[in-house]
Amino acid sequence: MNAHVVGYYSTRFGELWERSLFQLVEEAIQGALQQSKIDIDQVDAIFYGNMLAGVLDNNLHASAKIAEIVGRHLPVFRVESACASGGMAFHLAHEYVRSGAAKTVLVVGAEKMTDYSPEQTTSALAAAASGEEQEAGLTFPGLYAMMAHAYLDTYGYDESSLAHVAVKNHYHATRNKNAHFQREITVEQVLKSAAVANPLKVLDCSPISDGAAAVVITSDEGILGEHAVEVAATAVATDSISLKHRQSLHEVLSTKLAAEKAFSQAKLTPKDIQVAELHDCFTIAELMAMEAIGFCDAGRAGACVKEGNNMLGSGGELIINTSGGLKAAGHPVGATGIKQIGEVYLQLSGQAEDRQVSGATAGLAQNVGGSGGSSVVTILRARQ
Amino acid sequence: MNAHVVGYYSTRFGELWERSLFQLVEEAIQGALQQSKIDIDQVDAIFYGNMLAGVLDNNLHASAKIAEIVGRHLPVFRVESACASGGMAFHLAHEYVRSGAAKTVLVVGAEKMTDYSPEQTTSALAAAASGEEQEAGLTFPGLYAMMAHAYLDTYGYDESSLAHVAVKNHYHATRNKNAHFQREITVEQVLKSAAVANPLKVLDCSPISDGAAAVVITSDEGILGEHAVEVAATAVATDSISLKHRQSLHEVLSTKLAAEKAFSQAKLTPKDIQVAELHDCFTIAELMAMEAIGFCDAGRAGACVKEGNNMLGSGGELIINTSGGLKAAGHPVGATGIKQIGEVYLQLSGQAEDRQVSGATAGLAQNVGGSGGSSVVTILRARQ
Repeated sequence: MNAHVVGYYSTRFGELWERSLFQLVEEAIQGALQQSKIDIDQVDAIFYGNMLAGVLDNNLHASAKIAEIVGRHLPVFRVESACASGGMAFHLAHEYVRSGAAKTVLVVGAEKMTDYSPEQTTSALAAAASGEEQEAGLTFPGLYAMMAHAYLDTYGYDESSLAHVAVKNHYHATRNKNAHFQREITVEQVLKSAAVANPLKVLDCSPISDGAAAVVITSDEGILGEHAVEVAATAVATDSISLKHRQSLHEVLSTKLAAEKAFSQAKLTPKDIQVAELHDCFTIAELMAMEAIGFCDAGRAGACVKEGNNMLGSGGELIINTSGGLKAAGHPVGATGIKQIGEVYLQLSGQAEDRQVSGATAGLAQNVGGSGGSSVVTILRARQ
Repeated sequence: MNAHVVGYYSTRFGELWERSLFQLVEEAIQGALQQSKIDIDQVDAIFYGNMLAGVLDNNLHASAKIAEIVGRHLPVFRVESACASGGMAFHLAHEYVRSGAAKTVLVVGAEKMTDYSPEQTTSALAAAASGEEQEAGLTFPGLYAMMAHAYLDTYGYDESSLAHVAVKNHYHATRNKNAHFQREITVEQVLKSAAVANPLKVLDCSPISDGAAAVVITSDEGILGEHAVEVAATAVATDSISLKHRQSLHEVLSTKLAAEKAFSQAKLTPKDIQVAELHDCFTIAELMAMEAIGFCDAGRAGACVKEGNNMLGSGGELIINTSGGLKAAGHPVGATGIKQIGEVYLQLSGQAEDRQVSGATAGLAQNVGGSGGSSVVTILRARQ
């Protein structure tokens, strides 16, 4: 039997000044156990995705910290791959179940980012770039701005193509009570918002958020329950850390390679996917992801989003980022990859409430590290 | 077929001022490929153990940095569990092979610790303790000193029992050309060395080192070669991060539980082991490990080491830390767990040169995070 996701819980994402990192971790763990209708003693191992606690808070060795929280001696593993830490943790947890090392694994991702000055957080996030890029003073808005320029120039789009991504994802987030932002925005507002790194404006960028999310994966038929969703595939690929060594600025090769592997494992094609959570740390990233995964041809993503076919209620064949994406639901880095998989799980198990895509049978989550140096693509499938 | 280790390489451990972290990583990767007689294109994934690069050097997202070094798009995973990061990376890599996600995996561990002030390094290492312990100003020598007091008091030993561990491991290190320290010391020198945290003296403590180590694990019979050694078991357990929540100060429960699981998997007992690499970050840790693993009864380790039965040339049934251990071979944190497994591999494949234990058929490596909050126990077995 393939492994299944049997439960998911997310804390609210946002500026959670009153909560510590491990309080968020604990809330997500307890919530996911409850949603999965299991007890901690039924969990054989825990995987943990976190990027920044070491850099920002001199806080490492989370394996033992989480062991103390749950009061058990089980194996706990921390995995880090910048903004793809959550997806990587899920990938390794899934292989841990597949190998037989565990039957039931809990995967939790968390990040606490708002307790620090903007300079501290920006500097810490730059740890995911190459040494040369860091030394040159490049930040992530700067790196993605270069990709955005390349994309817009190559295909003759203007900045409104980016804005439509933000508008769609903000609209979706109004239906997600855990989202960092819960208000609609317009294309005009995006275009008039303050420039961050040309052509990216404030409303093209995901926010700095706190939050935690957890899912439970199992191969134990006894605890599948009515809401189980199959893990059809999860695949990882990497690329050079430095933009200057990439084949192309606007093609995310690590995502392309991971997606090809994942579709091959799942015996599915992009046309079989009805819901996807894509890594829109900046609006441009969602367009590049759509093309890298094969949801549309090279150069077509900008037009596709503008036409509105990926928005809830459009009747389109593929709805993207129903959670609100990183852009509007927030981007607590280590939690993001887990929240993406959790959102797809909710859609495929019919638990997505007023953002439910009806009749969805297969979904995909794409989680990216840094400027595309690592990618994880996960495909879930509803049980027949 | 069980997975096998087919090659191992370690850089020199020491104060390697002229080498960067990723130069050490690259040397270890290239060396392990060469020792395994394989090409990078035969490697399906890389696992990487590192603790401190984020905290000390704002350096994360190593997955993409390593992808750039090897010039390939393969999956790369960074695993962190404080001083057990290397062992944890090996454990997950082994399960990745067992799950069928990969046939051949390279595991590399590395740390760069000497480019920083002692205060920076000490503070960074404290990230592996609980928040409360950090705030109280407890450092790792302080935490292990409390365990040493508890051990010596409970069993009526004096400080010379600790010194014998250091003497043995320094003697072994004189036969390891990669060791940080390559000189013998005496019990008297240890006892007269400067106090760090009573009862621990400078010569009871492992040094701050730079270094990298890598092994190759495979399930591909085609590349086993004459030096292949079977991975009989690898198991992980955790304990509370805080000493105050432990059942006992001088019993390392995480190691005890991991060892029980590993022996059960391998269908072996402690008596079947002829060589072991134990996590002697401080001399007391080797004594506690011997008892937790079951190499001797509770309270007997001090006497056992004093009798000299674990030293090369003693003719004893179990030789411990032939590499020189963390104490004398050095402790570049992320590399340590890999070096331990590599040393056992060398012993079981008859490649340990003038520190070879003749006729060894089974060996064990024990890697510990922090003050015992996480442990990995790995058992290797010579091919029949």
